[in-house]
Amino acid sequence: MTEQIAVVPGDGIGQEVVPATQRILEAVGPDFEFVEAEAGDAVKEETGTALPDATRELVADSDATLFGAAGETAADVILPLRQVVDSFVNVRPARAYPGTDALRPETDLVFLRENTEGVYAGHESRLTNDVATLTRVVTESASERLAEFACEYVEERDEDGFTIAHKANVMRETDGLFRDTVDRVADVRGVPHDEVLMDAMATHLCLRPEEYGVVVCPNLAGDVLSDLAAGLVGGLGLLPSANIGPENALFEPVHGTAPDIAGEGVANPCATMFSAAMLLEHLGYDEEGQAVRGAIESVLEDGPRTPDLGGSAGTAEVTEAVLTRLS
Amino acid sequence: MTEQIAVVPGDGIGQEVVPATQRILEAVGPDFEFVEAEAGDAVKEETGTALPDATRELVADSDATLFGAAGETAADVILPLRQVVDSFVNVRPARAYPGTDALRPETDLVFLRENTEGVYAGHESRLTNDVATLTRVVTESASERLAEFACEYVEERDEDGFTIAHKANVMRETDGLFRDTVDRVADVRGVPHDEVLMDAMATHLCLRPEEYGVVVCPNLAGDVLSDLAAGLVGGLGLLPSANIGPENALFEPVHGTAPDIAGEGVANPCATMFSAAMLLEHLGYDEEGQAVRGAIESVLEDGPRTPDLGGSAGTAEVTEAVLTRLS
Ligand SMILES: CC(C)[C@H](C(=O)O)[C@@H](O)C(=O)O
Ligand SMILES: CC(C)[C@H](C(=O)O)[C@@H](O)C(=O)O
Repeated sequence: MTEQIAVVPGDGIGQEVVPATQRILEAVGPDFEFVEAEAGDAVKEETGTALPDATRELVADSDATLFGAAGETAADVILPLRQVVDSFVNVRPARAYPGTDALRPETDLVFLRENTEGVYAGHESRLTNDVATLTRVVTESASERLAEFACEYVEERDEDGFTIAHKANVMRETDGLFRDTVDRVADVRGVPHDEVLMDAMATHLCLRPEEYGVVVCPNLAGDVLSDLAAGLVGGLGLLPSANIGPENALFEPVHGTAPDIAGEGVANPCATMFSAAMLLEHLGYDEEGQAVRGAIESVLEDGPRTPDLGGSAGTAEVTEAVLTRLS
Repeated sequence: MTEQIAVVPGDGIGQEVVPATQRILEAVGPDFEFVEAEAGDAVKEETGTALPDATRELVADSDATLFGAAGETAADVILPLRQVVDSFVNVRPARAYPGTDALRPETDLVFLRENTEGVYAGHESRLTNDVATLTRVVTESASERLAEFACEYVEERDEDGFTIAHKANVMRETDGLFRDTVDRVADVRGVPHDEVLMDAMATHLCLRPEEYGVVVCPNLAGDVLSDLAAGLVGGLGLLPSANIGPENALFEPVHGTAPDIAGEGVANPCATMFSAAMLLEHLGYDEEGQAVRGAIESVLEDGPRTPDLGGSAGTAEVTEAVLTRLS
C-alpha cells in the first residue's frame, strides 16, 4: 500500500530541513508518495493567503504531513492545519541527547498537549473600547479523547504513568473539568497518574526534571511547558512534534524559521528528522522509525554537527552522516 | 506618623517565617503598629471561612500587609486579598544570590505581573455537561496602569527598559490589546522596550536569562514565568513579591506552606524577609529596606543557612544572624 505524504517546507530553514528529511524517509524505504505544497509568508506574499486551499486539501487527503516552519504567518498556518487533521493531541518529546550541551542532561519528557481548545479555541471579542475578552473552552469529550490517548501511550511504552499539569486552583470549572476527566479515565484504565499545578511544574522542571516523564496538559500549558523543556535540553533545535488526529497526522519540528541563518545551509535538520521518525512509527513502520532515530542519535553523539550545537558542519553534511549511519 | 502593618501568617511555615520577619521590621525601627489576623486552612477549619471579614477589613485599613502562606485554601485567600488592596501589579524579583546554588547564576529578573484580570478575572461557566468556559478579560485601563507603573519602575531604578511577554499571536484581541497598550505608553514616555512570545521566553530564560531584566506580562504568564525563574535561581525559598495597589499593598513570599517541614523550625525565612525589604521601600523607608536586603544577602553569602539551601541551621538561627548583621 502506497502512503501519501504531504511535504510542506514553509519558510526560512523549513526549505532546507524538510528536503533533507525527505531524503531520510526515501532512504529507509517505505513506499511513500511525496506531494509538496506551499504555506507561510512567501506564498502569502505571492497569493495573498498563507494557507492556500490546495495545501489544506492535500494535508486532509494525505496519510501524514511533514511540515517545516512558517514565519510571521505561523499561527495562520499551523493552527488551521492542526484543525485540518483534527489533531486532538500534540506529542512533544523533550530529551537531552548524549553529546549535546543540555542545561539539565537528565531531562527525558514527553508532553501530550491538548491540541484543539483552551485559549486556542479563539473566541475573542472587543466588547468596548476598554475591554477585550477571550472565551477559553474546555470540553469533557476532548479531555477524554486526550486521556485515552495518554493511557495507550503509557501502556504501549511501558511508562510509569503520567502527570496532569493544570491550573485548576484558579480555572476551577475549565481546568477542573480537564483534570477530573483525565483523572477519571486513568482511574478506569488503571494507569497511575498524579497532578501538579502548571506554575509549580515550571519550578520543578528546572530543579528536578527527572521526576517527570509523560505530562498531560491543556493547550497553552503544553505550549509553554514544552518550550521550557526545550530550554532544559539546550534549545529548540532538537525537538520534534506530532499532531495526531483520528485519520491522519502532521509532524513538525518545534523550532521556527530561524531567519538569521535561513539560506546559509547550516540549519540543524535533526528536529525535523526526529519528527520523521515519529511519522514512521505513527504509520506503523516501527523498525524504520527506530533506525532513523538511532542514526540521528549516533550522529549527535560523535558525528558532524551544525553551529547551533557548537559544530561547523552544514545541513548537507549532517544529512549525509545520518544517511551513512542508516545503511 | 505611625503606619499600620497587618500581619497575616496563614498556615504551615507562614507561622514561622512571618514572626521571624516581624522581628526584623521591629529592629530597623520605623514606627510601625503591627496588627495580626488570620487566614487560611486553619481558620477555615475553625470558622468555616478561609478569609474572615475581619482580616479583609484589617488589610484594607492597613498601610501594608505582610502575608505568609495559605495551604489548600491559597486561592481563596490570596486572590481576594489582592482585590482588597486593588493590587494592579505583582512585583516579583528573581535573582540568584552569591553563595546559593543556582541553575543559572546570571539570573537577575523582575516580573511586573498584571494582577487583576486575564484568566484570573474568573468568569467561568459550565455551559453544558460537555462544555466549560472561562472568559479571559483584558482591559486597556488595567494594561495602561501596569505600563505606567513599569515605566516608573524602570526610570527610578535606571534599568535599560523592559520586555513585554505575551501570546498575542494566538490571543490576538486580548493579548494584542495588552501588548499594544503597554507599547504605546512606553513609546509616549520614551522607555525602551521590546517584546517576546511567552513560550519563546520560557526557552530563552533557560538558555540566556542574562538577556532579560524587567518583564511586563499578563497575569498567568507572570505566574508561570516567574515560577520558572524561581527554578533558575534554585527554588522558591528566596523569592519575595509585592502586590501593589494605589492606597496600600501586600507583601508575600512566593513559596507556599511547605507542609513537609512546617512546625520543625527549619523554614527558610529569607523570602519573607526580602518581602519585608520591599515593604519598607514601598513605604518610603529606602535606607531601612536596603539595610534589610543587605543583611539577608550577607547571611546568604557566608552565614548560617537552612536545609533547603544545603545548611543545617534553623529559622531562629538565621533570624539572629540577620539581626546581628543589621546592627
Ligand atoms: C505558532 C504558534 C501558534 C504555535 C502555538 O502556540 O501552538 C507554536 O508556538 C507551537 O507551539 O507550535
Ligand atoms: C495560589 C495561587 C492562586 C497563586 C496564583 O496563581 O497567583 C500563586 O500561584 C501565586 O503565584 O501567587
